[in-house]
Amino acid sequence: MTDLTILHRLFDTIEARKLADANNSYVAKLFHGGHDKILKKIAEESAETLMASKDGHANQVVYETADLWFHCLVLLAYHEVTLDDVLQELARREGISGLEEKASRIKG
Amino acid sequence: MTDLTILHRLFDTIEARKLADANNSYVAKLFHGGHDKILKKIAEESAETLMASKDGHANQVVYETADLWFHCLVLLAYHEVTLDDVLQELARREGISGLEEKASRIKG
Amino acid sequence: MTDLTILHRLFDTIEARKLADANNSYVAKLFHGGHDKILKKIAEESAETLMASKDGHANQVVYETADLWFHCLVLLAYHEVTLDDVLQELARREGISGLEEKASRIKG
Amino acid sequence: MTDLTILHRLFDTIEARKLADANNSYVAKLFHGGHDKILKKIAEESAETLMASKDGHANQVVYETADLWFHCLVLLAYHEVTLDDVLQELARREGISGLEEKASRIKG
Repeated sequence: MTDLTILHRLFDTIEARKLADANNSYVAKLFHGGHDKILKKIAEESAETLMASKDGHANQVVYETADLWFHCLVLLAYHEVTLDDVLQELARREGISGLEEKASRIKG
Repeated sequence: MTDLTILHRLFDTIEARKLADANNSYVAKLFHGGHDKILKKIAEESAETLMASKDGHANQVVYETADLWFHCLVLLAYHEVTLDDVLQELARREGISGLEEKASRIKG
Repeated sequence: MTDLTILHRLFDTIEARKLADANNSYVAKLFHGGHDKILKKIAEESAETLMASKDGHANQVVYETADLWFHCLVLLAYHEVTLDDVLQELARREGISGLEEKASRIKG
Repeated sequence: MTDLTILHRLFDTIEARKLADANNSYVAKLFHGGHDKILKKIAEESAETLMASKDGHANQVVYETADLWFHCLVLLAYHEVTLDDVLQELARREGISGLEEKASRIKG
């Protein structure tokens, strides 16, 4: 089982780079580009995930999902919330009544 | 720091429910609905993340990101790849040359 | 060549139904549902267009494009702008320097 | 009322540029880039429409809708179907039982 702490290291790195020089850091460039630039990346990576999935390329789905999650972490940092907040939200749903039941009620 | 194993528990649950009765399980219902049903959920949650972000509602961004990641896990299970594959892809990028530099090269 | 006035008739119908009873009118139901409901439909139809296109089903692409344009007309009505405004924008670009050249500059 | 023939002129121009030199034509560049490049533009313009709408900038919604429709025309040409096919689909729905009723049934 892969060490999950990569997600925390990644989020910490993003937090640390928020104010870096945009010429040296992709994350700083995104933050410098502003809110819409981050959102466009999420829309783009989401569409690329769909396209890879439709192509039936499982490896590409892995790759695009990694990209999508990375940019989600950037968006969390933009809003000054954290990876932990997302994990707690997932744990909360599991805790209440089983994730599936909760998801089922939410999603109708 | 929140226990990251929620993601692994969640992925294992999804794997276990793939073949469950669609009447009793949201995950089984998604799998029963087929590939496009899963992809539509990813598109929908991605759009809802954008909308929550534009509204400036950080808590809602957390909530929608949790939803988006959950459906990404379902898609990974659909393609018979794993959460570990995504984590390894993220770790691989970090390992080579620092995530930022890698991301910068990929994204142009 | 098909009568293009279908688009104007459609937009006029949407305008007329904005304030209709939400039980009797799909358009009124959308307006009653609010801004986010309209935007979710645009995100959904856009994703369905992508999926139909990836499936190589040209007839389905036509069908989903019709759905997407319909919901774009609803969004225009929501913002109290018109189909004519979109057509004028397209004509303006054509008029200045040839559509392609203009598009090329905009899109980089 | 604006001359709707802009849409037909635009579609004809796109058809004519499909095989042009990619260095001189934005449309040829898109076709040269391939199917995914066209789909990415549709996903991108759709997201930009959402973002403009959330910002409450009606003029920007007009602008992004024009961009979205332009790239839909490119996608139709890619699949060797036409603007007329989309207009006929819209007219067909209107013809059967009133557009709203049809849409309502389709959309549930």
